[in-house]
Amino acid sequence: MEKEELTQLFNFFREIDKEKFIGRQTYLTDGVRKENDAEHAWHTAIMTVLLAGYANEKIDVLKTVTMLLIHDIVEIDAGDTYAYDEDAKKTQREREVKAADRIFGLLPEKQGKEFRALWEEFEAQETAESKFARTMDNIQPIMLNAATDGKAWEEHDVHIEQILNRNRNTAKGSEAIWEYAKEEFLRPNLENGKIKK
Amino acid sequence: MEKEELTQLFNFFREIDKEKFIGRQTYLTDGVRKENDAEHAWHTAIMTVLLAGYANEKIDVLKTVTMLLIHDIVEIDAGDTYAYDEDAKKTQREREVKAADRIFGLLPEKQGKEFRALWEEFEAQETAESKFARTMDNIQPIMLNAATDGKAWEEHDVHIEQILNRNRNTAKGSEAIWEYAKEEFLRPNLENGKIKK
Repeated sequence: MEKEELTQLFNFFREIDKEKFIGRQTYLTDGVRKENDAEHAWHTAIMTVLLAGYANEKIDVLKTVTMLLIHDIVEIDAGDTYAYDEDAKKTQREREVKAADRIFGLLPEKQGKEFRALWEEFEAQETAESKFARTMDNIQPIMLNAATDGKAWEEHDVHIEQILNRNRNTAKGSEAIWEYAKEEFLRPNLENGKIKK
Repeated sequence: MEKEELTQLFNFFREIDKEKFIGRQTYLTDGVRKENDAEHAWHTAIMTVLLAGYANEKIDVLKTVTMLLIHDIVEIDAGDTYAYDEDAKKTQREREVKAADRIFGLLPEKQGKEFRALWEEFEAQETAESKFARTMDNIQPIMLNAATDGKAWEEHDVHIEQILNRNRNTAKGSEAIWEYAKEEFLRPNLENGKIKK
């Protein structure tokens, strides 16, 4: 019984190793290599532990950290959908639900339901934890894009309206952090033309 | 005040991006690319959430997860010390303490002390959380080495005595998980010669 459960858990752990191969559009601070989903999730989890006090509403930190650790697991099957790729975004939900069925389905039933529910909670964006998790998910690449002199924004010819639209809910998790990011990360790159007006 | 603290926190977040460039000896499940410290930390954090019930003693899951998320940050300056490199291991503690001073020193004083204490707790291996974190830190690469048909063990000509010595404390966090790993990950690779007798 215990052995069977451990086998299911380790099958899941082996499977999610594939998240390390899912590339994102964000450059790491060296400005050369692009980040993968596992690295991104790790970064946002640490940020959550240290930034939880800036959440608009009190959050359960472990729940939020766990949500962020697993929020991109569906991309193992569904791939990373770039924030400004409007065509890919049309089929995103369908692709991700199918992936969630398969990947969380590897877990023992109880844990599978819990993780699936946590992912759905993140997607639904109704709770304090999911809103703060989304804030972290959005702020982390903005921080890295700013740290690499707006390289990814420049390459994708990104306009400020796209960023503001993409981040229309970022302040719902933390107004303080969104204000800080606008002032420190977006404004300088708008002024120097790396982000288009 | 708030802005100053956020600036210190984001300086730390940008700095720890470098952990994504610290390579380890473990092959990922594709058997080609080797893992980095950030990916490893992410993997062990998820494992902790799902395996905490197998700990010998009851653990604080958030504390253990946070400990694992940051346990290798010192390697940004000190580098990864391979488990079976006896020369490098002699200077490891000195190199890592210096790194901890610098990197955790980037944080606001309160958070810097907390994270430094958490890292020291991991190193000291006296609490239930640190023992379980060490179990995860040790089991995750064993799982990956087994998943890649023992490639890393074979390349480094690793003997079973070295593995057992390296893992002499792994059962202190979880006897059940160590027993499972011995049976499912080590025994088959000992039998087929990937691990030397």
